[in-house]
Amino acid sequence: MGKYAFGVDVGGTTVKMGLFDEAGSVLDKWEIPTVKDNGGERILPDVAESLLKKKEEKGISEAELAGIGIGVPGAVDSEGNLVGGAVNIGWKPFNIPDALRAYIKIPVKAANDANAAAFGEMWKGGGRGCANMVAVTLGTGVGGGIIINGNIITGATGAAGEIGHIHIEDDETEECGCKNRGCLEQYASATGIVRLAVRRLAEDEKPSSLRGMTLSAKAVFDAVKAGDGVAIEIAQRFGRYLGKGLAMVANVVNPEVFVIGGGVSKAGEILLGFVEPQLQKYVFPPCRGVRLALAQLGNDAGIYGAAGLILRG
Amino acid sequence: MGKYAFGVDVGGTTVKMGLFDEAGSVLDKWEIPTVKDNGGERILPDVAESLLKKKEEKGISEAELAGIGIGVPGAVDSEGNLVGGAVNIGWKPFNIPDALRAYIKIPVKAANDANAAAFGEMWKGGGRGCANMVAVTLGTGVGGGIIINGNIITGATGAAGEIGHIHIEDDETEECGCKNRGCLEQYASATGIVRLAVRRLAEDEKPSSLRGMTLSAKAVFDAVKAGDGVAIEIAQRFGRYLGKGLAMVANVVNPEVFVIGGGVSKAGEILLGFVEPQLQKYVFPPCRGVRLALAQLGNDAGIYGAAGLILRG
Repeated sequence: MGKYAFGVDVGGTTVKMGLFDEAGSVLDKWEIPTVKDNGGERILPDVAESLLKKKEEKGISEAELAGIGIGVPGAVDSEGNLVGGAVNIGWKPFNIPDALRAYIKIPVKAANDANAAAFGEMWKGGGRGCANMVAVTLGTGVGGGIIINGNIITGATGAAGEIGHIHIEDDETEECGCKNRGCLEQYASATGIVRLAVRRLAEDEKPSSLRGMTLSAKAVFDAVKAGDGVAIEIAQRFGRYLGKGLAMVANVVNPEVFVIGGGVSKAGEILLGFVEPQLQKYVFPPCRGVRLALAQLGNDAGIYGAAGLILRG
Repeated sequence: MGKYAFGVDVGGTTVKMGLFDEAGSVLDKWEIPTVKDNGGERILPDVAESLLKKKEEKGISEAELAGIGIGVPGAVDSEGNLVGGAVNIGWKPFNIPDALRAYIKIPVKAANDANAAAFGEMWKGGGRGCANMVAVTLGTGVGGGIIINGNIITGATGAAGEIGHIHIEDDETEECGCKNRGCLEQYASATGIVRLAVRRLAEDEKPSSLRGMTLSAKAVFDAVKAGDGVAIEIAQRFGRYLGKGLAMVANVVNPEVFVIGGGVSKAGEILLGFVEPQLQKYVFPPCRGVRLALAQLGNDAGIYGAAGLILRG
């Protein structure tokens, strides 16, 4: 097997790429713009061209390349089929490894981007050493990636791990982006935390540094750190929703660890403190060994995980 | 590989056993009592003795035996370790394949009994042809077994699939057997359905054939079939809880099918009709392809699945 692998993370604005050695160290990383014109037809040729150029530049032979891993923003099944297309970048359904191999003749493995990031965190990040883990991304939405016995779970249609859309609240009146009501994402994402804050602030006149401020998840957790009582109540509500949701997930797949990433997780360990007791309260007692950890690879999780599909998969 | 396998299902009262050919047909099945004295120390020697006797009786050589699969009533990890013991039969934690191979020198694979039954339903029952399925057992409790890409998920400590203890109701005042409150099992098991019936009947004086009757899940569904309005309301509440719980599971592992078994499932297709619309209501839209099916193997699911661990695993 070759000594090197490329990890590729196709995003809506840029494609991130990395060259990794077999120990999983990143030797180089760079990015190119994502050209979405005409159904994103340039994206894979552009990726192939950039990888081939890097290969030349580094003087790496084909035999030394173990393969290319690629994460894409859509549901991908275990054969690398982009099941429902990738609406953000204009792609219709197709088989990604076959398509990329048309330009560059080495082994290719494809995965959903959140799943690739989960795999990266297991391999080199906050879930290192854990063969059973769930990565939770708290960003604009709430994403998830599930690793069982060291492998990504894709599910029947590539939609496994969509924990942001677990139904968690019967009394919700507003619609989630998915058209259901009461999804975890409506409370535990960055926008969800703002919703919780708006609602809490409207309940009474209790003084808070958040009043009159442009609300954001960061503002809420900064206020928590400063000891603001209302912000702490908001964080408690967030923690109750997320802890309850993760408890459900733990009962289903019994992971060793939840690795929490995404923009909201930048609040740091203090955030985990609001989630942990609720998780332990609601989880089935035999699953109580599960821990919470912060993600460690940030925006590079995707390229690590994609390369890991080749080097460790 | 040998042409035959034994499937063993260790229960609290009897040990069921079956001899299977490589096509998965059962050639013989029988049972022996489970002797639980002295920490259940006789159980495995008794099993081995019975299997060896059957092997002689059938004139099967060691080379013709592919192995023994065994399901036991406790959490079993992917190496066959009985992680937390099996309290019903007095067993402490130990490695089951190693222990059984001390008596009979052929390959052994062990699994949790509910997981083995799930595997059996995938191989030869209601989930045939589906590599991604969740088996749901509605009995005294609610059990689950999760199959992903054709393999049982055990989780970090063998507790994966414990869907009966998903938290589903914030307002529950009574404790579940696990000491939490509001677990799915408190509403969707045979005893849970009786609880729902008792509560509904106490709400008002609406006439019902269930009044004054000894309540059971069977009585409720019999009354549903006879068109009893109160019984139908009880079944609707059951369906809402179970549908909501299964929707959460579907969001996590994205199965093709839920295979519903256990005593409660004897009510038949009518039961699925109460669950299906609620499942589809609460599930994440991309996971809506999931279907409900009835289990087909009854009490034999465990021996089928145990043999399947050897013949198909």
